Amino acid sequence: MRQSTDWAKERFAEARVARLGTVSAGGRPRVVPIVFALLGDTLVTGVDGKPKSSAHLQRIENIASNPKVSVLVDHYDDDWTQLWWARADGDARVIDEDAGVRAALVARYDQYREFALPGPFIVIEVAGWSGWSAV
Amino acid sequence: MRQSTDWAKERFAEARVARLGTVSAGGRPRVVPIVFALLGDTLVTGVDGKPKSSAHLQRIENIASNPKVSVLVDHYDDDWTQLWWARADGDARVIDEDAGVRAALVARYDQYREFALPGPFIVIEVAGWSGWSAV
Repeated sequence: MRQSTDWAKERFAEARVARLGTVSAGGRPRVVPIVFALLGDTLVTGVDGKPKSSAHLQRIENIASNPKVSVLVDHYDDDWTQLWWARADGDARVIDEDAGVRAALVARYDQYREFALPGPFIVIEVAGWSGWSAV
Repeated sequence: MRQSTDWAKERFAEARVARLGTVSAGGRPRVVPIVFALLGDTLVTGVDGKPKSSAHLQRIENIASNPKVSVLVDHYDDDWTQLWWARADGDARVIDEDAGVRAALVARYDQYREFALPGPFIVIEVAGWSGWSAV
């Protein structure tokens, strides 16, 4: 059943990982896992210091040519009455540095004490929250 | 580190859930969770009998106007040395019925004994498999 905006935001507030969908200039989608933090209706994520290939940064190129993004958190269980998902749709921009964004990510993930977070950062203004649960 | 096509296909073969990214005619991405089955380099998923709103079928409309899709499986762990993801990128088509596709989904998910699977089905010809693991 459809769930409220508040319900969807709560699912994001609790989730440790989400999946970000972006679109290339040629109209091809790309889905990648992200860690993230919420600042009201703004969802932020960083490009951290884990080993990446250059292709991994396609998301940055995509946002430069098309700012529209979709972010999903969901719960899978083999008991399908337990399924749910929440989605945040909006527009993204890429910034090199922002103290507030960095602080929000470091506060949420202790792992950033060990893993570098050089940026850039992706800042998503969420225009629509949606959610669904099986029961 | 980058992983092989075979590695990525193995991750899909083991995963119970994936996330499907599609793109609307207006260039807006949408990410939804899916259950799926693999038939070689073809990934198939159904629109099952769980309660859906009409908006939930946006994925079908999207594929009709833009067949490009991206499908992700990933593993999150608070120990970031355990992270991995695998992605299948390709082109999708929507079909009303296919006995082989239906059988593959029912064979993989016992849940379809209880949950209706009326179709339509989404059939994705995967053109590129990619994968990454932290270690």
